[in-house]
Amino acid sequence: MPDETGLAMTVDELNELIISQFPDYAACRVAEVSATRLLLEADGEKLRTRPGGTISGPEQAGLTDLGAFLLINARIGRTLMALTSSMQVNFLSRPRPGLLRTEVRLAKLGSRLCVVLAELRDEPGGLVATATLTYSVPPPHQR
Amino acid sequence: MPDETGLAMTVDELNELIISQFPDYAACRVAEVSATRLLLEADGEKLRTRPGGTISGPEQAGLTDLGAFLLINARIGRTLMALTSSMQVNFLSRPRPGLLRTEVRLAKLGSRLCVVLAELRDEPGGLVATATLTYSVPPPHQR
Amino acid sequence: MPDETGLAMTVDELNELIISQFPDYAACRVAEVSATRLLLEADGEKLRTRPGGTISGPEQAGLTDLGAFLLINARIGRTLMALTSSMQVNFLSRPRPGLLRTEVRLAKLGSRLCVVLAELRDEPGGLVATATLTYSVPPPHQR
Amino acid sequence: MPDETGLAMTVDELNELIISQFPDYAACRVAEVSATRLLLEADGEKLRTRPGGTISGPEQAGLTDLGAFLLINARIGRTLMALTSSMQVNFLSRPRPGLLRTEVRLAKLGSRLCVVLAELRDEPGGLVATATLTYSVPPPHQR
Repeated sequence: MPDETGLAMTVDELNELIISQFPDYAACRVAEVSATRLLLEADGEKLRTRPGGTISGPEQAGLTDLGAFLLINARIGRTLMALTSSMQVNFLSRPRPGLLRTEVRLAKLGSRLCVVLAELRDEPGGLVATATLTYSVPPPHQR
Repeated sequence: MPDETGLAMTVDELNELIISQFPDYAACRVAEVSATRLLLEADGEKLRTRPGGTISGPEQAGLTDLGAFLLINARIGRTLMALTSSMQVNFLSRPRPGLLRTEVRLAKLGSRLCVVLAELRDEPGGLVATATLTYSVPPPHQR
Repeated sequence: MPDETGLAMTVDELNELIISQFPDYAACRVAEVSATRLLLEADGEKLRTRPGGTISGPEQAGLTDLGAFLLINARIGRTLMALTSSMQVNFLSRPRPGLLRTEVRLAKLGSRLCVVLAELRDEPGGLVATATLTYSVPPPHQR
Repeated sequence: MPDETGLAMTVDELNELIISQFPDYAACRVAEVSATRLLLEADGEKLRTRPGGTISGPEQAGLTDLGAFLLINARIGRTLMALTSSMQVNFLSRPRPGLLRTEVRLAKLGSRLCVVLAELRDEPGGLVATATLTYSVPPPHQR
């Protein structure tokens, strides 16, 4: 049940959700959350790389997907039934080693479909990737 | 250098490329390749899952990305400089456990940009996901 | 109500739908339809061009969107409540003047969401564009 | 040649470009431009509608495409050789009648590839659509 901030989960609860359900993303933690925005931080050294040493594209996509999932959970309450229906990612530059920040924003929270925009930045703040994700969510009376 | 079939690499060479450069994708092997199409098979039991036990979306995206990379290498010769510039994936149904087949087709092989279409199917043949990937490739005189 | 072929509308009924509801697409007509595929033909001379004389990208996108809309109508029965929720188009080459053929295939017909793949070809058969469209459709009991 | 603001074209020059080269978009005019952002305004009453009276999806896509084209021209100088290579649009809500504002932002201006993010809003400010467009541009020495 969302509180007066519009949120149904705290940062700590979101981080517990990562630990208990997403062991492949143990390098990630939620730094901030509001009703329309979530910031996820990841240690780039612990992510999958591709030949040449840069972080793999699907791993970058995975960060935006995890961020979107967590923001939707923060809004509608903890549910594993929020399912990615599409992801679209543009890779803009190779991330510098170190911290990666994934910022996700809610563009639409519909009764069955959500749209989330994501931006991935490395430590100096350079834009590494942008993404748009759509999620299928349980209808309000089943949440 | 491509031979008369239009291919610069054999199935065996592509599989050696997976083993030497993509250890995260050890569950995958190339089953077939032609000048415009490649079939990649993966043991779904060895892929990353998400809560609920199904194969994670980014992992499915990764299969289509690997297939696209290999098909482009098969055409232009072994290069790690073929880089994903975008990926767009639609998730249609949850894959059944077991073998996953990723079929990639070359829609465009330009002098600097390639476009690859992908379809992911589970063992009974059901369509699990479709994807479109774009790759930035070295210009012909640098290959 | 779909008949034994799985179709709820004939080619003639689909063409009447274009004429009555889509006057901007008067240059288009349905040439073939089956339960999973529709072929739309357009006179390229009557479409919007962009500077340089080629057919504009949004106009190409519009052909794939119209084809997807018609195929979904052919399956679930005439409804204006099938709404595009996303379109993703890759432009591969400039079409030659003359006939343009848009082939759309149904990748998923869900209870609320449809996914359609499209390929656009010019007269010699060259691939001009590919697209993926998602549609929100009325649930079965409201069709 | 860009001036000290990083711009190679003024708002007036961009609006002349619309009038001379894009007669289908006569309902549009550039309201603001900076080195990384452009605001395009359109009279929704003069755009293509679809059955039901809302502005058609491809027409919305066209606004984001035009905005992206103009912003790239504003940066690299007037050229018709900036070509859309992909467009990805999510339709979020039906626009209210009246003014439509398309805001485009430059995510990447590479030597050959540009990535532009777009948001389309109606008069009350509601988010109507988001888009990501990629453009192929002439290399710097040919501009």
